[in-house]
Amino acid sequence: MSPVRRPRALSGFPEFLPSERIVEQHVLDSLRRTFELHGFASLETRAVEQLDDLLRKGETDKEVYLLRRLQAEDDDSGSSGDQLGLHFDLTVPFARYVLENAGRLDFPFRRYQIQPAWRGERPQEGRYRQFTQADIDVIDANTLSFHFEVEVPLVVGEALSRLPIPPVRIQVNNRKLAEGFYRGVGAEDPSIVLRTVDKLDKIGPDAVAALLVEQAGLSVAAAKACLDLASITSSDLRFADAVAALGVSNPQLDEGLDELVQVVQAGIEQAPGLMVADLRIARGLDYYTGTVYETLLEGFERFGSVSSGGRYDALATDGRTTYPGVGISIGVTRILGLLLGRGMLRASRSVPSAVLVAVVDEASRPTSARIAAALRARGIPSEVAPAAAKYGKQIRHADRRGIPYVWFPDSRAHGGEGSDAVGRPASAIGGSVRDIRSGEQIEADAGTWNPPAHDLWPTISAAEPGDSGPPGEPSMTTEREDEQS
Amino acid sequence: MSPVRRPRALSGFPEFLPSERIVEQHVLDSLRRTFELHGFASLETRAVEQLDDLLRKGETDKEVYLLRRLQAEDDDSGSSGDQLGLHFDLTVPFARYVLENAGRLDFPFRRYQIQPAWRGERPQEGRYRQFTQADIDVIDANTLSFHFEVEVPLVVGEALSRLPIPPVRIQVNNRKLAEGFYRGVGAEDPSIVLRTVDKLDKIGPDAVAALLVEQAGLSVAAAKACLDLASITSSDLRFADAVAALGVSNPQLDEGLDELVQVVQAGIEQAPGLMVADLRIARGLDYYTGTVYETLLEGFERFGSVSSGGRYDALATDGRTTYPGVGISIGVTRILGLLLGRGMLRASRSVPSAVLVAVVDEASRPTSARIAAALRARGIPSEVAPAAAKYGKQIRHADRRGIPYVWFPDSRAHGGEGSDAVGRPASAIGGSVRDIRSGEQIEADAGTWNPPAHDLWPTISAAEPGDSGPPGEPSMTTEREDEQS
Repeated sequence: MSPVRRPRALSGFPEFLPSERIVEQHVLDSLRRTFELHGFASLETRAVEQLDDLLRKGETDKEVYLLRRLQAEDDDSGSSGDQLGLHFDLTVPFARYVLENAGRLDFPFRRYQIQPAWRGERPQEGRYRQFTQADIDVIDANTLSFHFEVEVPLVVGEALSRLPIPPVRIQVNNRKLAEGFYRGVGAEDPSIVLRTVDKLDKIGPDAVAALLVEQAGLSVAAAKACLDLASITSSDLRFADAVAALGVSNPQLDEGLDELVQVVQAGIEQAPGLMVADLRIARGLDYYTGTVYETLLEGFERFGSVSSGGRYDALATDGRTTYPGVGISIGVTRILGLLLGRGMLRASRSVPSAVLVAVVDEASRPTSARIAAALRARGIPSEVAPAAAKYGKQIRHADRRGIPYVWFPDSRAHGGEGSDAVGRPASAIGGSVRDIRSGEQIEADAGTWNPPAHDLWPTISAAEPGDSGPPGEPSMTTEREDEQS
Repeated sequence: MSPVRRPRALSGFPEFLPSERIVEQHVLDSLRRTFELHGFASLETRAVEQLDDLLRKGETDKEVYLLRRLQAEDDDSGSSGDQLGLHFDLTVPFARYVLENAGRLDFPFRRYQIQPAWRGERPQEGRYRQFTQADIDVIDANTLSFHFEVEVPLVVGEALSRLPIPPVRIQVNNRKLAEGFYRGVGAEDPSIVLRTVDKLDKIGPDAVAALLVEQAGLSVAAAKACLDLASITSSDLRFADAVAALGVSNPQLDEGLDELVQVVQAGIEQAPGLMVADLRIARGLDYYTGTVYETLLEGFERFGSVSSGGRYDALATDGRTTYPGVGISIGVTRILGLLLGRGMLRASRSVPSAVLVAVVDEASRPTSARIAAALRARGIPSEVAPAAAKYGKQIRHADRRGIPYVWFPDSRAHGGEGSDAVGRPASAIGGSVRDIRSGEQIEADAGTWNPPAHDLWPTISAAEPGDSGPPGEPSMTTEREDEQS
């Protein structure tokens, strides 16, 4: 026997208490339902990828957790092709899965994927090392219709709007628009300009302008034009006029502008208030080639995007077929960490049970078990009291967990026989049920009694931010964790 | 751009196709519902534990996957207390979680946990390196009532009986019974006898008898008595007479026998055919102290237990409080691998969508989107065709995925106006809907039409084992993977 002792919390690996987990389940169930109503099929990939697949994406190699067997032989580390690492997002595994199973999938392929991801960074404030993401992507073989770039943010917007969280706003931009513009003002390598403009939040416009001249080789006027472009934002279509007013001409710019108009226009028609064109949105990753998305949570804008993604033309290719796609990733742990840490999401109880069936004495435990079984048979979550303690103690057991009802078995029915004072036969699954919140108690039969629908399962309520002391670790997020997809 | 290329399948890391994943979702949803109806609260723990916590359990150190950051400094490996490894079961993480959160949990604590676990073994036939387990445990502070040892296998039996899988039989034994018996025949260290008898399947009775004499120091007669005990099995209470007939006297034996009678008796009353006393069941792990469980799947007995566990008195302790518990772990990947590999579980389609809304031409895509939205608003999963191809091609799109209905928008309604030949106004969300299996097509309005309930979501059907070629990797299981809890 070597029992576990002295556990230490691990920074960056948040875990929820049972009532918080009920909130998380509610959020994940709701996301799943919306995705499935829109025809996205569920997928789960293994947690590990081969290291060379993980590193192809670039820029993130520092963040990978490698795996090694404790008893591995010395000559076992092998090449990077044999090394395994935990996935740091759900896009790389999805791309690998599509290539591996291309012959058995139907394209266009709509999938959602809700799983943890891991990033082996030095523990620092606001970086989780394990976090759950919820991704949707549509991927096709060789060509992907533009209309999916319109559809995907609407699905994500609908999914987020069904959660008990503050409103979100999806900021939309288009890589073709930005890159065409940069070419139009004379940039030889638009990706350098893009990465530089992406630093606006961190280093400010003056430093960005200086870098654009020094490193991207732009003229001072061109650098100013790029900053002007990045300042354009509108929730209607006026952004298009503002871009035109900058007087830059480029066919790729025109194509991107037309696409961005279509995305924002669809948002105006189908989800007013959801989307805003924001021409500063760049997304750091090289592989985006069309529309890009970031998402701000009202009241939590300073924490950055909670849901990001974009269009990619060739994340995956096997040499013969290329698979373009568009997808958005929702940072579930990020959102829950922010809201749970501030008491803004609460479950009505910490257990599924709607009913605690009391136990009169240990000899009659089977009677209580039969009552609970009769309730469960009609879909009412029920548990039997752990001990035949005094009723007051059994009621406190329910109260501590938020179980709303306590069922007291009919004491005449322990043998399954008997009758009451006026000769009515006692039911073996009868008794009385008390709403322990109001104290109201009624005679009932476990074969017919139902709680009100809102008491059947735990419910989630949204609340204003509490000021009940410092938030716990899950709320200490200060930077984006969901860089993709 | 560094697109992913040439993926290689990883032995031991099974992944499902979309239609198989729908089967898995169905199984996991069903398990969750049964557990929650019985009042078990959901928990998820982080994937990693500190290495010294993982190694406390003993015997499994070879199997741990250690984590290392790709860019870790040389002096970063540190002591085993700082090293992280992936959990190899859900019991060790649960024990650690209980200790870490003891002050914020209510005891007895009923939890279920459905997560992957990892074992870094050399790839070999029948060993998954990543697999999903579904555990339930009841844990209490300092003392745990025996009746939970009766309840837990009944809950697991109910959960498994609600799955579309062959019947299961839970084999039950009791550590006190076995250890008391071994002491009664003169064993000084019953755990050596236990581990030796546990090898019956592998080395046979003669070799076990020899080892009992050589290594456990038993007399030849005592060794024979231990083998006689291990041969006792009954689905009724006759096993108790058979034990008594061996004429061994020991108070611990009597206590264990009484407990086993209670467990089997409850099974006879509440779930006839579910449980069988089998006095050969030992469970390898040292920490079990009372009832132990293994589970055989009818027709797949040779693959060993698909669900195992037992009572433990002190898996977790913080020095002041000890937390005894009882739990059973279901090997979900094991069961699915066996049945999916033989074509014994099938989903009715590979996507959630019940309806594919056809697109007349790209200009009218918004019309089709409105129809799909009207269907979804009433809970009908619907997707819009990816391209305004010929209807035959759009129908094939649905057919390939098993989508049962194709909706053809009313072509008069593209502008949202118009009327038909007899002057009826066309509905903007009207049209005709075809059951592509029967070819039957009816006029319908997306605001009122409903598919039959059995077509709303994918359904799962169980089938006899197919003989359609060799099974895929998930079916190649030959040994237990679920050693616990």
